[in-house]
Amino acid sequence: MNTDKIYPLAVIGAGPAGLSASIYASRYGIDHIVIGHLLGGQISETHEIDNYPAIEAANGAEFAESLVAHARKFGAPIENRMVMNIAKEDGGFAVSLDGGSVIRSKVLLLATGTRRRTLGIDRESEFLGRGVSYCATCDGFFYRGRTVTVIGGNNSATGAAVYLAGIADKVRLVYRGAQLRAQEHLLKALRERPNVDIILDTNVISLIGEESLTAVKLDHPYEGSDILPTDGLFIEIGSDPSADFARDLGVATDESGFIKVNADMSTSVAGIYAAGDITDGSDKFRQVITAAAEGAIAARSIHTVLAKSAVS
Amino acid sequence: MNTDKIYPLAVIGAGPAGLSASIYASRYGIDHIVIGHLLGGQISETHEIDNYPAIEAANGAEFAESLVAHARKFGAPIENRMVMNIAKEDGGFAVSLDGGSVIRSKVLLLATGTRRRTLGIDRESEFLGRGVSYCATCDGFFYRGRTVTVIGGNNSATGAAVYLAGIADKVRLVYRGAQLRAQEHLLKALRERPNVDIILDTNVISLIGEESLTAVKLDHPYEGSDILPTDGLFIEIGSDPSADFARDLGVATDESGFIKVNADMSTSVAGIYAAGDITDGSDKFRQVITAAAEGAIAARSIHTVLAKSAVS
Repeated sequence: MNTDKIYPLAVIGAGPAGLSASIYASRYGIDHIVIGHLLGGQISETHEIDNYPAIEAANGAEFAESLVAHARKFGAPIENRMVMNIAKEDGGFAVSLDGGSVIRSKVLLLATGTRRRTLGIDRESEFLGRGVSYCATCDGFFYRGRTVTVIGGNNSATGAAVYLAGIADKVRLVYRGAQLRAQEHLLKALRERPNVDIILDTNVISLIGEESLTAVKLDHPYEGSDILPTDGLFIEIGSDPSADFARDLGVATDESGFIKVNADMSTSVAGIYAAGDITDGSDKFRQVITAAAEGAIAARSIHTVLAKSAVS
Repeated sequence: MNTDKIYPLAVIGAGPAGLSASIYASRYGIDHIVIGHLLGGQISETHEIDNYPAIEAANGAEFAESLVAHARKFGAPIENRMVMNIAKEDGGFAVSLDGGSVIRSKVLLLATGTRRRTLGIDRESEFLGRGVSYCATCDGFFYRGRTVTVIGGNNSATGAAVYLAGIADKVRLVYRGAQLRAQEHLLKALRERPNVDIILDTNVISLIGEESLTAVKLDHPYEGSDILPTDGLFIEIGSDPSADFARDLGVATDESGFIKVNADMSTSVAGIYAAGDITDGSDKFRQVITAAAEGAIAARSIHTVLAKSAVS
């Protein structure tokens, strides 16, 4: 990290999009820095990735390490820090990090991804780490032989239920909708697990316990009671874009808060590009493979724009 | 291969786009078949791939094998055959293979990539394999300690010259333009090779030799002569889209012949999708990573359209 210079490019976010952009930026000879508080991004907290073409199966943490190593090998400095603020200034941007240092750059690539959605009910944060979790693959192991509840009905909730069924004694998947919305292979895997109950058309409305969570309250009775005892609660109800910096910088977002990108990954603000889960690109199909592709496209566009500005 | 049934999906092309689509299609539970004459696609003929994020460096053939193995693991039958013709018929498509068998499908994914451009001069095909090559990494090894000429000025020509400089005694890079148009890291690598001459503003206009190529004729003299003796000639002047089937089927293409795709990888013809180097997607940045991403997006869209047609 060099706080005295103006980097041609600062990449905000060290997940697949940011690191792919870094790999390509290095190949283009763009002097740049990557800043991210979670190296490898959310995939590093995932149990397994098996849909990144040419890598049959990898542990999420290992995959994340491969990405980081690949970017580092090509020469990118990666600053493992939290970004506190980004301000537009004459000729570029000032990125303030935790600890007080400031990185300056001509061009900015926002690759900040998404953050997990919360239920927004009482005591949810109080019980975090005491029964409540947003990451089955991170915390599932603590519930070996016990009873857990998963909330949600999409791929991540269904995947979490399948994963937990191999660890916990009993899994209940509670979903507000009338039918699960997961991929067929996940539904098939779920059906093959004898220790999973699927509870549809139902919401968890409150959390019960003293020091730790012991039960949840449902808005409809299940097997005669609206109190469902559980040792763990895994909340897997989707993600929201981490677009705070984008909004502060005046970057246009869509109705769900994702950054609107053009085909070249430029945004509505000159000098700001975006890639990965944070954008509305790739037909909104937010996968590791599409994030990495967007990072590559962004790096090429940034190379072109920097080359032009060097000439003019 | 089952010629008695109608597959929900036939994927034409077994490169990164087609195989990525297959991996995703299998995850979605889409019964499909992949047909391609070059398993793994053009990357299988590449010396090394080092810009596919999370895979630091792999031999092209090994990378291609990983892609094929990944798709096969998820259950896709891959038919290693040449497609001779594709016809629209009631409710879908009929794909005729060499040998005469016909595969039928409801939906078609065209992932046929590109094919290498030829110079179009006399005796070019006559000398193919006798001094003329379109693939430095396939044939470079035969020119150990000899003199070779590379034609072109883009990334692939420059990369080929760098690669050949490590094998051949002498390499000459002939380009019609006034300066090379390759990425900075390739230009740097080229400059570091003492046994490469760069000949700009020059075209090869004819090929000279009896049984095999022995020299090329230039349109401008180089070091006092327009006859440049060479043992091998590597023609690396870009690629054209393999869009013959697309045109036969009435699929709209852009001015360069690439298939026009929408954000979901659908084309102008209902039931036909496209992905990879053959399309104008990904801001026309044709890389393995973008091809794989397009394949994934296409598979999701095809899943959606098949699910709808199953309901209606």
